[in-house]
Amino acid sequence: MDIGLLQELKSVVAPEQVSTSAQDLKFFASDQGPITAYCEPDVVVWAESVADVQAVVRLAAIHDIPIVARGAGTGVSGGAHATPGSLVLVLDRMNAILELNAQDEIARVEPGVINADLNDAAAVHGLMYAPDPASYKTSTIGGNIATNAGGLRCAKYGVTRDAVLALDVVLADGTLIHTGHRTFKGVAGYDLTALFVGSEGTLGIVVGATVRLKYLPVDIRTLAVFFPDVRSAAAGVLALGKARVQPCILEMIDGASLEELDSHHGTDLATRGNALLLAQFDGLAASQESDIAAAALSDLGGVVSREDPAEAERLVDLRRHNRGLDLDSDITVGEDVALPRSQLVHYVAALEDMALRHGVGVRIIAHAGDGNLHPTFWVPEAEPAKIAALNAALDESIEKALELGGTITGEHGIGQYKLRWLPLEQSEKVRHIQQNIKDLFDPQGILNPGKAIVMAL
Amino acid sequence: MDIGLLQELKSVVAPEQVSTSAQDLKFFASDQGPITAYCEPDVVVWAESVADVQAVVRLAAIHDIPIVARGAGTGVSGGAHATPGSLVLVLDRMNAILELNAQDEIARVEPGVINADLNDAAAVHGLMYAPDPASYKTSTIGGNIATNAGGLRCAKYGVTRDAVLALDVVLADGTLIHTGHRTFKGVAGYDLTALFVGSEGTLGIVVGATVRLKYLPVDIRTLAVFFPDVRSAAAGVLALGKARVQPCILEMIDGASLEELDSHHGTDLATRGNALLLAQFDGLAASQESDIAAAALSDLGGVVSREDPAEAERLVDLRRHNRGLDLDSDITVGEDVALPRSQLVHYVAALEDMALRHGVGVRIIAHAGDGNLHPTFWVPEAEPAKIAALNAALDESIEKALELGGTITGEHGIGQYKLRWLPLEQSEKVRHIQQNIKDLFDPQGILNPGKAIVMAL
Ligand SMILES: Cc1cc2nc3c(=O)[nH]c(=O)nc-3n(C[C@H](O)[C@H](O)[C@H](O)COP(=O)(O)OP(=O)(O)OC[C@H]3O[C@@H](n4cnc5c(N)ncnc54)[C@H](O)[C@@H]3O)c2cc1C
Ligand SMILES: Cc1cc2nc3c(=O)[nH]c(=O)nc-3n(C[C@H](O)[C@H](O)[C@H](O)COP(=O)(O)OP(=O)(O)OC[C@H]3O[C@@H](n4cnc5c(N)ncnc54)[C@H](O)[C@@H]3O)c2cc1C
Repeated sequence: MDIGLLQELKSVVAPEQVSTSAQDLKFFASDQGPITAYCEPDVVVWAESVADVQAVVRLAAIHDIPIVARGAGTGVSGGAHATPGSLVLVLDRMNAILELNAQDEIARVEPGVINADLNDAAAVHGLMYAPDPASYKTSTIGGNIATNAGGLRCAKYGVTRDAVLALDVVLADGTLIHTGHRTFKGVAGYDLTALFVGSEGTLGIVVGATVRLKYLPVDIRTLAVFFPDVRSAAAGVLALGKARVQPCILEMIDGASLEELDSHHGTDLATRGNALLLAQFDGLAASQESDIAAAALSDLGGVVSREDPAEAERLVDLRRHNRGLDLDSDITVGEDVALPRSQLVHYVAALEDMALRHGVGVRIIAHAGDGNLHPTFWVPEAEPAKIAALNAALDESIEKALELGGTITGEHGIGQYKLRWLPLEQSEKVRHIQQNIKDLFDPQGILNPGKAIVMAL
Repeated sequence: MDIGLLQELKSVVAPEQVSTSAQDLKFFASDQGPITAYCEPDVVVWAESVADVQAVVRLAAIHDIPIVARGAGTGVSGGAHATPGSLVLVLDRMNAILELNAQDEIARVEPGVINADLNDAAAVHGLMYAPDPASYKTSTIGGNIATNAGGLRCAKYGVTRDAVLALDVVLADGTLIHTGHRTFKGVAGYDLTALFVGSEGTLGIVVGATVRLKYLPVDIRTLAVFFPDVRSAAAGVLALGKARVQPCILEMIDGASLEELDSHHGTDLATRGNALLLAQFDGLAASQESDIAAAALSDLGGVVSREDPAEAERLVDLRRHNRGLDLDSDITVGEDVALPRSQLVHYVAALEDMALRHGVGVRIIAHAGDGNLHPTFWVPEAEPAKIAALNAALDESIEKALELGGTITGEHGIGQYKLRWLPLEQSEKVRHIQQNIKDLFDPQGILNPGKAIVMAL
């Protein structure tokens, strides 16, 4: 990269906050998403303060350098992939919990705070930060906000957007703005906070957030319900709805995923059934709700076991790790569709049929309470014909989800990888509006260009 | 109004959908908000279909006529007040529930559906549409969306924004777009749905909505807790938070409001105490939660009575009607601040002090669980000096709310009436962004101009 510019960068922040080492450029080239066009950034900068972010953005604006904001890099859509000539701005050192107010039931945090750290701090007060992506031990609140992350207990408590009250954002010209309110409710002006949530670093850099906390539940009951096949498990999701009980966690894991878990963790889940519904209930009515659920699910042919707290914790933890096993590679590719709940059964059947027809493998895990599925297609080796089959199955699975009234991304975001499918879901007019909003916030196009939105294929 | 244009209007919709009668122009001149500059529209048009809305908007665009969308006209910020030369577009005839899908737990509705009608239809399936403004028997879903309405049970279930999944919107050029998703979760592109929610008819006309339904609670317990003064009642709100129970309704009514209710309904509430906390708990744990709440509140000096279902219903209904009594007039003016919960006690004390200093009366009701207060200031007659005192108290109450970390509007919206206070809450830069968004969606400025946002005083 231009040596003069590098000097300038090192003068607006401290020299040790800037790196062009081969190792760093490689490490910060990509997040956990599929890599379609590998590209290293020109430089990596670690911000340590709001002023750092502002100074770096201003310099980038002058020199017309694309900025890729980065939290922990656990994104799975390539939203934090470096792009040609880019500066990766890492925010994980801005990791202070600025305030945790138990009476107001809110926290103010810097963007690099790890989700689990905020939850640990809140737990001391009997509170929790509800949105808990499976990556909660590593991902940052800033990244969670930029992707509008979901998680396991979002079935009951809502997604990131529902928890964010106010934001501090550095805009493309380096200006710092504050949006939203410290109060639970507030309707002054347009909802800019919601506009930034899920915008994947393309409208501004989140440098602070005020989030709402919820009460840590006093009781937790967990059911592991095994079914003969994944379609019956999917039917179980509807049965719970019909019983009008609201699990805080409702995860579905198919037989192939159970085997995968067993082979990595030495468990024997697959011997217990070909599909697992993991249902957790919390709060004062947890035991009543889990009784109702157990009855509804065993009526449906599920084999219900009530898990003691330690075993329940282990199962939920296994589920959380499952995504780790399914990270994309050249022979594995996962997706993130969400469906109206009545379509879960049909979609699961369609996926199995698709895999069979295309001669590829499929594993399915799902945040089933939200209708959000993560099927993973895989082939044994990276032969061209097999890869073609993999991609054909993948494309078909996306089209099918849309056909059934679903969306192409329930929680992972469009990033770079899902750009090609966006026009299937959103009309040209809607994409045009989004491009106009992007141009409004970032006329030069320096904030994570080529991510999140797309005008045309 | 121009006779040619009137003919054109009558040709794009049916003649009986258009009126310029003196009576209609008067009726549709204002909503329930304070009137600062009375103005009648040039014409009133009742839309009966999406195509009607598109045709009227296209015609208005050609002739540069401002359009004021109107649901039931129950708004209290003047958002639906007519402006000079305007066309009021009434949407209450578009009142079909297009779909109510109990498995998917969603409904698709036209904008003119009355909130209570949707709730009645959902109740048949054991479901409810959670956001319930006190005006739920008359206000429309379209109006609720355009104002991001709150309500009584929002303390537990969230506000309108949290319930809206997708929208059909007619833009300023007559184009129809669809935003959002039918699924509970979805993060494709920017959150345009949230941008339209709360935009008070200034960015587009909502002609359809897909909303999420929640489970109708199986059990409901209601506590009426009387306190010697409103400050203690406000302290009770914090005590409940500390006890970590989540009421679905938590309303606070001060002594002056109790007297007002008594005088209109022949009740004897004021004899029971000088402030009332009305706390309702729902769901399977309702009785446990209300026991915990009762203990916490009586520890604080509250006199707790457990209400039987009929009496509970009556009390909640009285509370709902209370706002009807407090509608603004030339001697009465109410507001809608929201505060961080820890500040409720201080704010209530400050209000009482303010009223005393300015020599005006004050009554306070609050969606206390959300920290959202509706104080009403009043004077006995419309003398200039008294009106000046009224306005001085009002302005001070707004400034005090901001000073304590609050917002100027928790749920009623900026409309026309609160424009003057918006710059106290939002920076010039933020207001500038909002103006730019407005210009993007409505370059001609024909959608409800002069409402919701403001660049400068
Ligand atoms: C094992 C595993 C499990 C997962 N489980 C889930 C899950 O259950 N639910 C879920 O939703 N996701 C899940 N994910 C995906 C990922 O963890 C989430 O998207 C997470 O929110 C990303 O946070 P991060 O800090 O790693 O952000 P990054 O990956 O660093 O960045 C993600 C996006 O946000 C932008 N960004 C980051 N920080 C900022 C900021 N401060 N300002 C502006 N833009 C910013 C980046 O440019 C990028 O576009 C999982 C990932 C893994 C690897
Ligand atoms: C007795 C009483 C109690 C109330 N209690 C509450 C309460 O608890 N919580 C609360 O939040 N509010 C409350 N309100 C205020 C009011 O009822 C709400 O703001 C309600 O959402 C307005 O709905 P409406 O159909 O009457 O809309 P209107 O008053 O007709 O319009 C409100 C605003 O929305 C716009 N608009 C209406 N329909 C559309 C559409 N389809 N597309 C685009 N823009 C549109 C209008 O232009 C206007 O700016 C109360 C009002 C009264 C009179």
